[in-house]
Amino acid sequence: MAVTDATILERLNKLSITHPEVITHSPVKGSSEWLSELSIKSPNLSSTSLTKTLLFKPKTAKTSIPTPVLILAKDSTETSSNLLGKLLNLKELRLSSEDLIKSVFPSSNSKDDVSVLALPFPKDENIYLILDKSLANSEDQFALHLTSSSTTILLKGLDIKTYLESLIQGEGDKQIVKLVDFDELKANAPTAPPAGAKPAPKEKKAEAKPAVAQEEDEKYNMAIKYKKDEDFPGWYTDVLIKGQMLDYYDISGCYILRPWSYSIWQTIQTWFDDEIKKLGVQDCYFPMFVSNARLEKEKDHIEGFAPEVAWVTRAGKSELEEPIAIRPTSETVMYPYYAKWINSHRDLPLKLNQWNSVVRWEFKNPQPFLRTREFLWQEGHTAFLHKAEAAKEVMDILDLYRKVYTDLLAVPVVPGKKSENEKFAGGDYTTTVEGFIPTTGRGIQGATSHHLGQNFSKMFDISVESPNRGEDRIHAYQNSWGLSTRSLGVMVMVHGDDQGLVLPPRVALQQVVVVPVGLSKGEGKNQPIYDACSELERTLLAGGIRAKADLREGYTPGWKFNDWEMRGVPLRLELGPRDIAAKSTLAVRRYDNHKSSIPLSDIANTVRTYLEEIQASMFKKAQEKFDSCLIPVTKWDDVVPTLDAKNILVLPWCEGNQCEDDIKERSKSQANKGETEDNKAPSAGAKSLCIPFDQERFGKFPEGENQKCIQCGEKAKSWTMFGRSELYLPPLATSKSTDILNHFIGY
Amino acid sequence: MAVTDATILERLNKLSITHPEVITHSPVKGSSEWLSELSIKSPNLSSTSLTKTLLFKPKTAKTSIPTPVLILAKDSTETSSNLLGKLLNLKELRLSSEDLIKSVFPSSNSKDDVSVLALPFPKDENIYLILDKSLANSEDQFALHLTSSSTTILLKGLDIKTYLESLIQGEGDKQIVKLVDFDELKANAPTAPPAGAKPAPKEKKAEAKPAVAQEEDEKYNMAIKYKKDEDFPGWYTDVLIKGQMLDYYDISGCYILRPWSYSIWQTIQTWFDDEIKKLGVQDCYFPMFVSNARLEKEKDHIEGFAPEVAWVTRAGKSELEEPIAIRPTSETVMYPYYAKWINSHRDLPLKLNQWNSVVRWEFKNPQPFLRTREFLWQEGHTAFLHKAEAAKEVMDILDLYRKVYTDLLAVPVVPGKKSENEKFAGGDYTTTVEGFIPTTGRGIQGATSHHLGQNFSKMFDISVESPNRGEDRIHAYQNSWGLSTRSLGVMVMVHGDDQGLVLPPRVALQQVVVVPVGLSKGEGKNQPIYDACSELERTLLAGGIRAKADLREGYTPGWKFNDWEMRGVPLRLELGPRDIAAKSTLAVRRYDNHKSSIPLSDIANTVRTYLEEIQASMFKKAQEKFDSCLIPVTKWDDVVPTLDAKNILVLPWCEGNQCEDDIKERSKSQANKGETEDNKAPSAGAKSLCIPFDQERFGKFPEGENQKCIQCGEKAKSWTMFGRSELYLPPLATSKSTDILNHFIGY
Repeated sequence: MAVTDATILERLNKLSITHPEVITHSPVKGSSEWLSELSIKSPNLSSTSLTKTLLFKPKTAKTSIPTPVLILAKDSTETSSNLLGKLLNLKELRLSSEDLIKSVFPSSNSKDDVSVLALPFPKDENIYLILDKSLANSEDQFALHLTSSSTTILLKGLDIKTYLESLIQGEGDKQIVKLVDFDELKANAPTAPPAGAKPAPKEKKAEAKPAVAQEEDEKYNMAIKYKKDEDFPGWYTDVLIKGQMLDYYDISGCYILRPWSYSIWQTIQTWFDDEIKKLGVQDCYFPMFVSNARLEKEKDHIEGFAPEVAWVTRAGKSELEEPIAIRPTSETVMYPYYAKWINSHRDLPLKLNQWNSVVRWEFKNPQPFLRTREFLWQEGHTAFLHKAEAAKEVMDILDLYRKVYTDLLAVPVVPGKKSENEKFAGGDYTTTVEGFIPTTGRGIQGATSHHLGQNFSKMFDISVESPNRGEDRIHAYQNSWGLSTRSLGVMVMVHGDDQGLVLPPRVALQQVVVVPVGLSKGEGKNQPIYDACSELERTLLAGGIRAKADLREGYTPGWKFNDWEMRGVPLRLELGPRDIAAKSTLAVRRYDNHKSSIPLSDIANTVRTYLEEIQASMFKKAQEKFDSCLIPVTKWDDVVPTLDAKNILVLPWCEGNQCEDDIKERSKSQANKGETEDNKAPSAGAKSLCIPFDQERFGKFPEGENQKCIQCGEKAKSWTMFGRSELYLPPLATSKSTDILNHFIGY
Repeated sequence: MAVTDATILERLNKLSITHPEVITHSPVKGSSEWLSELSIKSPNLSSTSLTKTLLFKPKTAKTSIPTPVLILAKDSTETSSNLLGKLLNLKELRLSSEDLIKSVFPSSNSKDDVSVLALPFPKDENIYLILDKSLANSEDQFALHLTSSSTTILLKGLDIKTYLESLIQGEGDKQIVKLVDFDELKANAPTAPPAGAKPAPKEKKAEAKPAVAQEEDEKYNMAIKYKKDEDFPGWYTDVLIKGQMLDYYDISGCYILRPWSYSIWQTIQTWFDDEIKKLGVQDCYFPMFVSNARLEKEKDHIEGFAPEVAWVTRAGKSELEEPIAIRPTSETVMYPYYAKWINSHRDLPLKLNQWNSVVRWEFKNPQPFLRTREFLWQEGHTAFLHKAEAAKEVMDILDLYRKVYTDLLAVPVVPGKKSENEKFAGGDYTTTVEGFIPTTGRGIQGATSHHLGQNFSKMFDISVESPNRGEDRIHAYQNSWGLSTRSLGVMVMVHGDDQGLVLPPRVALQQVVVVPVGLSKGEGKNQPIYDACSELERTLLAGGIRAKADLREGYTPGWKFNDWEMRGVPLRLELGPRDIAAKSTLAVRRYDNHKSSIPLSDIANTVRTYLEEIQASMFKKAQEKFDSCLIPVTKWDDVVPTLDAKNILVLPWCEGNQCEDDIKERSKSQANKGETEDNKAPSAGAKSLCIPFDQERFGKFPEGENQKCIQCGEKAKSWTMFGRSELYLPPLATSKSTDILNHFIGY
């Protein structure tokens, strides 16, 4: 008998298991989509509540029938198939084929629909049913599908266990529900986990507590549930959502930029736009649509990004005669008009920029700010008569990008040039500002400024008559450069901590929060304190400081502290009766929790100075961390251990293409040699990040006989930064690509 | 034998008619698409070069076979079928059916493919072939299709005539090529043209001149080719393109906003954004995509805008499981999250705004700024606990919209309330700022600010617990309000003149141009003049004035004057040897061409004051014009004549829905009663524009017995503005619509 949703609900009913109403939604693939679908109807649900169901098959002799291993675990639990196999004494557990899934779950259509709830009963086959201990013993509710990925039911961990045991118990030795503590399993594992492996999040003690005071409970729910060092992806998402930077949206890969993040983008926009206008760049707006013909005109380039292009094929009920693309980038949109507008050397230079959104329908796992299907950016496209002018602008723009990171976001970056492998293949050379995420030890490209040479101008015939008679027509020298909202993600990753966001004062929408403290019970008694807070707010606002007094009633000071800490407000000023009497306020810095009492006289100037100090200190702290992780390495044996210790390598390198590939392969294979676990996330090899313009910061370059490329032994040309790249995510783009898009992907 | 492209080219060859290479492109419908397709490959082609081919059938006795009338004319020529019928002594010429087209042009697939070039030969049927005289006698090149609308050939007018005569000549009385001067035809017409009929553009004398000095020629090509009063649509497009406000794009209905226009939008953005932030509004960014489910959730609303929604159905080569819409507006995108975020009265008010682009795939004739398939706007969406707060904000925002028009764009508007018929049906009431285009006598909606009441909050369940215990949950009171790039189009239409754009100083990207005059021949001689111009530029820039010295070589001062006049720069400063000697400069105001010499000492302050005066005078001039066209009318007999004289009516009105419909119908039928011509563009009826908040400006409201609605005679409630609306275009939206979109359409 096929298992239906009704069957499952009836079973639950028989076992007296209660649950909230079943949620129906669009079919989902993966936890991100699932959470997004659930986010509206169960706003309190976090990713900790998701579960995963995995079906493994052990390797057996061909003649024998393998006993499948079915795992239900919290989505965040690291379920090492390797260690589990050892525990069960089974060889080489592998994710099962669709065929096996069908045989175990006759009612499922695909692996996305698999749910332990839908196990047939009575079962006529053996099965190992493994239950994540941290889930099975929990009073918390977890999300599971019924018979398809478009339905979700919330059940307590204990109830899930009860349900499964009712299906399986007593049916022979191998058909039991086995609880496995995956954390323990890992801790007792004989070999060390490979570098970069994601540790499972620790259980919070509070989670098991049956009863806490209401405020404490609310406070807990509000707090960041993951430690940055323990579960970086979980921490990142949690911080962004609870810090109100963004919200998930019901279309996978799209996110809502709330004012808390959008205002930072606006600050960057305003600053950068002013600066480029000083350079003579003008803003414009080209349409978001590109015709098929235009996009396909450059056949060499279309291939690279074609898989990510979103196509409009219908308007209302009318099929369009030709599908129309949404721009993934604007070369083919803009350059034909450059050819039209540029007819004389008097029309040069042409320097245009636009602030817009672009769409790349990536099928990889989306990540807020870092990989989103629609994102905001600026793209500058300039054309010059002389190469030297173009070359100068490339560097001018790069320096502006550096300042966006260092001066606004307080994030250190290293300006440099990309290797031949890593440059935008459509251009002559690429410059970049490279950032660093200490938690993962990974490099991240901050923004890029390219010199395109005459490659595009020849392709699109952007040319003018030479000002000198008798000479041939001159094709323009072009640059393109871009910076995206990815920068906000980098800022969060660099500065955030276990309490939440930490925002640099210069970009924070709210720089100061004033919180009334020392309140008494009884109506009207606190009015003098509230008045003092309002007065302080007014004084600060008048002094040009973005301040706000939090006079919300019904929340304790502690709750408010936590709230504003989570949101990263750089400075908290506490005002209570004693402070008022002493004509001072207690100032608490977000980034290091330093407390000091400061006088209320001349408070605006004091706070302004204080904020500048915070900005400088945050940058200094991040810069020191980055510096300490930039490790010059001249012996190959040190390469992988240095990477494993979450550093960026600085290598003497010959700058050869082949040699870069070799370094990547060699570091990758060595890093993974000792690996015994988690073959889903092998350690990445080291790729070149950039050749820093400032070579001297790394000390004396090896000379004479010692001036050897670390890989090939030929003469080294420069100190070059190599590292694992792109955070905990799969790489954003293949490194050696020739498509038009990749030079932008890192913006 | 079917006529093919090859047949035509061979015929041309036999007649020794030379021509440039045939242009192939996407199939086009209508001249706008055609011009857009051609714009890349023949950048110098203007809309004057387009032709139209029309096939008419006269009314005849049923038994006789009608002789078709085929017309080839310049696209801009007004070809009155009525007058032509009289000339040919044929009754009631009507555009022919597809059947007749097939019989005359066996090789055409549709009316869009029809081309006189594809006439079969020898013809075995009678036909009148009418050739526009102004085309047939011209040396200029004109664009025609070959056998389909996806090919274009450029031929001289004289050659077209030769070609057609070779096909037709001598084949009987009725089969001749007849040249018709449509202008003359019209001038000699016995009856006056109906009000609102579009006069044909006058031929420019220069067009016939065979040889002019090169500079004169270039100057002519650069000048605006249409008179504002004679061919308003042609003038508008020409001014926008030659003024470098925008360029056509190869997707119909999409336009490129060049820096000259985008900078004005940025000025509006900056000003308005500052102002709404003072009101506590925060900016954010929601995704451009909406899921099908979300969009269709509100079935009552989807119907209205469904026909205009663009759908993404494919990413790369993968069909999406569900098509995804591009937002036409953001209610269904945003309000579900309002419901999620607003849980307590402490979460109110919520005031969000976004600057974004929206897409409405209209199939009507697109118009730059006024009706485009993608356009830029801001949309504000706010939610309040109390109705009174919301009501206040509606008016605060409306006043900001007024200031955008009056203070930035120097365009007068009348703030008022929309009638019940014209309000956004999804809300409680709509306020508006109504503008006026004197050239057409039409009203135009400038921007709208709506109070939505609780209609949406109930639909989306945006509610909070009452702060007072025991009371029911309170649904939020919501507003929405928006302003789009349409405002730029209104500004151009109000201020522009026959020389081109006229920009108000506050929004002009360039406020002042400094032009060197009195130049001598001989190298180096003019350097002192150039230096003085640069010096003046520097002084003005240092004084915060957006000035530029035009030191381009190879252009005469006259050419430069014309260039900057066309682009609308508010003030020209001429500097020559005599000015330098006199320590003065000749200042020429763009808007009225007033010239005066002003001293160079303290020039920045003088110019700053001067620019403010220009801004004020431009507004005053436009305001006076608007005022003089706001005509209080209390007798019905005056209604249509007042409309026909390009005025806005101010009527005593009962504010009844039915009565509004009656006024519209009655004014329409009366206006068209006397019409004898051009049944393609019947005069529109008068619809209500708004009930102005300032009633007293129209003088004493009729009292006692006289206080009667002009239409129904019941008691009148207010002076209400009625007029023909929406310029020369078909109405942007049906007036009495209930869809979610129409309240935005007028933004």
